Amino acid sequence: MAERIVIALGGNALGKTPTEQLSLVRETARPLVDLVEKGYELVIGHGNGPQVGMINLAMEYSAQKGGSTPFMPFAECGAMTQGYIGYHLQQALQRELNRRGLQKNVVTLVTQVVVDEDDPGFLHPTKPVGCFYTREQAEKMAANKGLTFMEDAGRGYRRVVPSPIPRRIVEIEVVEQLVDSGAIVITVGGGGIPVVERGHGLQGVEAVIDKDRASSLLARDLKADRLIILTAVDRVCVNFGRPDQVALSEMSLADCRRYIAEGQFAPGSMLPKVEACMDFVSGTPGGQALITSLSRASDALEGKTGTVIHA
Amino acid sequence: MAERIVIALGGNALGKTPTEQLSLVRETARPLVDLVEKGYELVIGHGNGPQVGMINLAMEYSAQKGGSTPFMPFAECGAMTQGYIGYHLQQALQRELNRRGLQKNVVTLVTQVVVDEDDPGFLHPTKPVGCFYTREQAEKMAANKGLTFMEDAGRGYRRVVPSPIPRRIVEIEVVEQLVDSGAIVITVGGGGIPVVERGHGLQGVEAVIDKDRASSLLARDLKADRLIILTAVDRVCVNFGRPDQVALSEMSLADCRRYIAEGQFAPGSMLPKVEACMDFVSGTPGGQALITSLSRASDALEGKTGTVIHA
Repeated sequence: MAERIVIALGGNALGKTPTEQLSLVRETARPLVDLVEKGYELVIGHGNGPQVGMINLAMEYSAQKGGSTPFMPFAECGAMTQGYIGYHLQQALQRELNRRGLQKNVVTLVTQVVVDEDDPGFLHPTKPVGCFYTREQAEKMAANKGLTFMEDAGRGYRRVVPSPIPRRIVEIEVVEQLVDSGAIVITVGGGGIPVVERGHGLQGVEAVIDKDRASSLLARDLKADRLIILTAVDRVCVNFGRPDQVALSEMSLADCRRYIAEGQFAPGSMLPKVEACMDFVSGTPGGQALITSLSRASDALEGKTGTVIHA
Repeated sequence: MAERIVIALGGNALGKTPTEQLSLVRETARPLVDLVEKGYELVIGHGNGPQVGMINLAMEYSAQKGGSTPFMPFAECGAMTQGYIGYHLQQALQRELNRRGLQKNVVTLVTQVVVDEDDPGFLHPTKPVGCFYTREQAEKMAANKGLTFMEDAGRGYRRVVPSPIPRRIVEIEVVEQLVDSGAIVITVGGGGIPVVERGHGLQGVEAVIDKDRASSLLARDLKADRLIILTAVDRVCVNFGRPDQVALSEMSLADCRRYIAEGQFAPGSMLPKVEACMDFVSGTPGGQALITSLSRASDALEGKTGTVIHA
């Protein structure tokens, strides 16, 4: 049976403009289709940081400065990025598959991810999004719309949104069915559209879910053989940037805990990636996680590079 | 076996702002879930006129007026609306299903629709989108970006995009598979993201596909039993607005052709709806098309209202 791999692709690797993104997804498609050609089953989660920032900024700018378009909540901006990124990505993957004569369906699902309404993250929004405002503007919007603002490095005030923990992928049954049928599925884009359970249904919330955590949940749900978190480096390092820096080829869960206690991994950077890998490995008997770069993903699966996280 | 119905939902019925849309999709969900409760299999195509206009306008406003966000092509704006509308629609349908204790998956697929590169529509763009410009601005953008502008009713110059005929739904295999498995599928949003075939792959084009025509193609591909095109009126009329106006309960293909020759149906309004129905009926042995309003859809299926178009 084909090995099932969930890949978490960074939003930063997708570029800041549609032209950039269209060119970058073509680069991205090659190493991903290499994996398909080797017989792996692919499921793709992706980030949307720069893209949701850009859309949110444009919608906010136009709404505030006379463009006569409505204020757009953050969950809806996230939904837009799933269409925008998924479209480019599925088109690029299909083109690369066609080029190599491989027959596979590629599909993007609009995906909601449930978070807890009482997630502690909601009390401490930390993720800056959208435009810069003056203190006065920020205070007015905070009062009128119940939004939170923070001063951002002397450049003015920006909205901050919480980053709650993903609990449930709403469309998971359909994702699984499509993956089982052999399709390459693009899902939990931007970590998924953040929703909370409310009565009979779901409701969008102003938040952004970490895409590595959402991809880890996806990999657990799909009982994937591997979770691959792609990043800018080929391997995780300890003593990063120091003379005694070491690139790790593997870490057990115990190693991860020890390194985390030592403060080896930067919060907001390598730490959430390692934690996402730990969640997958501890929830998936036999599952292995891998942190590496996109260009070396194929080599990493052959053990030539990358950092393996195992139980 | 359950009767399979493709429904084409108007973008105008979805509202102009996210708040409006969220409230309108809940209204929309009730009559749609009535059909599910009666045992029909639902596939939903929808328009995106006001929504893609709004997103395009905001992106254009921000890009032109100092928002420091990039110019966004029209196909990408369409992809965004598939995420934005699909998210609200699937959430509302799921909520209504839950409320009635019905178990169904609801899913939105990012959907590309192939059009011919030499479609005559490309020579005569007619659909106005985005901001108003002065003649000077319009001429500059026309020269720099190869866009077409038209003077719009004395209010200034607006971009116009072509509306080519949909030829192929790229993700149709997956749509069919999901419908077969019992899911409610939302697809060809806004008529689908318009693409042309180019080498090994597809490429987005600046165009907008009529959602009724795309839904008709969808219904033909899925061998649906019925295509329902929802509109503002319960029935199609001849001699519309005159003392001898007649609301039609049915039309054969021959009737349709005769009425069209008489100029009974307004181009850009009822005419494309009737043509989309004719395409479905003539391409689908035993298939019936129905034009009616959302609130009367259930009654129309029982023959109490609506206009049936049959071979």
